[in-house]
Amino acid sequence: MNPLKIIIFLYDGMTALDAIGVYEVLRLIPDAQVEFVAKQKGTIRMDSRMLSLVAEQSIEDVQQADILVLPGGATTHDVMQDQAVIDWVQYIHTHAKWTLSVCTGAGFLLKAGLLNNQPTTTHWASLQYVEALGGIPSNQRIVQTGKIITAAGVSAGIDAALMLVALERDESLAKAIQLVIEYDPQPPFDSGSIDKAAPATIDQASELLNANVQRAIAD
Amino acid sequence: MNPLKIIIFLYDGMTALDAIGVYEVLRLIPDAQVEFVAKQKGTIRMDSRMLSLVAEQSIEDVQQADILVLPGGATTHDVMQDQAVIDWVQYIHTHAKWTLSVCTGAGFLLKAGLLNNQPTTTHWASLQYVEALGGIPSNQRIVQTGKIITAAGVSAGIDAALMLVALERDESLAKAIQLVIEYDPQPPFDSGSIDKAAPATIDQASELLNANVQRAIAD
Repeated sequence: MNPLKIIIFLYDGMTALDAIGVYEVLRLIPDAQVEFVAKQKGTIRMDSRMLSLVAEQSIEDVQQADILVLPGGATTHDVMQDQAVIDWVQYIHTHAKWTLSVCTGAGFLLKAGLLNNQPTTTHWASLQYVEALGGIPSNQRIVQTGKIITAAGVSAGIDAALMLVALERDESLAKAIQLVIEYDPQPPFDSGSIDKAAPATIDQASELLNANVQRAIAD
Repeated sequence: MNPLKIIIFLYDGMTALDAIGVYEVLRLIPDAQVEFVAKQKGTIRMDSRMLSLVAEQSIEDVQQADILVLPGGATTHDVMQDQAVIDWVQYIHTHAKWTLSVCTGAGFLLKAGLLNNQPTTTHWASLQYVEALGGIPSNQRIVQTGKIITAAGVSAGIDAALMLVALERDESLAKAIQLVIEYDPQPPFDSGSIDKAAPATIDQASELLNANVQRAIAD
């Protein structure tokens, strides 16, 4: 039997947890083969400039995937202007069983025209850009339309990946993976969504996000 | 002002999300300087053998940290037999403000004698080993004793890191970081702890964990 081939796209300035939350769930599917892929293979610097992940293949090396994962980050808007990246996303998506975006990773799908007039979720701070790119902004944590799943910001990828395991395999495996990663969340505060956070928290979070973009595009 | 220096220890066969969940929270503290450190610097292979993170420093290069983070994984038991690692953990911990272990990362602290007769949490499948190493097993998701925080398996690091931000700085910043990573968890199932999972789910999770150890120690 062929392995379940899962491709996670990496790029400079992305947010690590967008990718790693999804990875840690999907890689536990017993026949999963996860590959990290970037425009050019090598060391990929995250938005913090403090962490690097390794992309072992370039997009030219990868022509097929069962599942395509598109993380977000501070530089998504710039990276999605690269037509070679968009063409690759479109091609891999067309032949894949599932495509999952996390956070601003939805931008790649919007730019490729794959979410035209479709409900689309993304990081709360980027939801305002969805409409101009042809999608319909949704404030849901996870949105599924056919074989595309869009997840909200950063940590939402974990929830979406568990849902994807259930869709691709079964609930039994999804529940077992949830237990392996002991995902019984007990956040000490309840400010994880724009609907629950106080205005001062939203302001402070917006400042942190701006600083993150400045850091990511420095050098 | 000196930055808040955060050291995350990496080793072959560890679990990526143990480290990255904590990293993604703590690195958003405005003056955080996060450094990834391994016994030898270079590319560090995760337990899945499908992902590598980069350690930019070796433990010999690092003599001080404000926060020490010890992730777990499939090989913790082997790595904690290395006296040079344990001596380093003990030294850095002694001079740090906080030490946070995630998952089986508690093993390093137990082995170093830093949790003798102290309540200690770890991944549910490893809780049985805590007593022989001198600690008192706790099934809580997060346990704080003085400046040591132990967190349960894998994803528990996210909750613990948010708590640590509130302890080190304030609740306002912790809440803003929670919103930045949109941490409003909505797992599609409720099987994330041993108390909630069905016996069949626990069996299946145990099989996945065993397979993970076999994969991690294979070459």
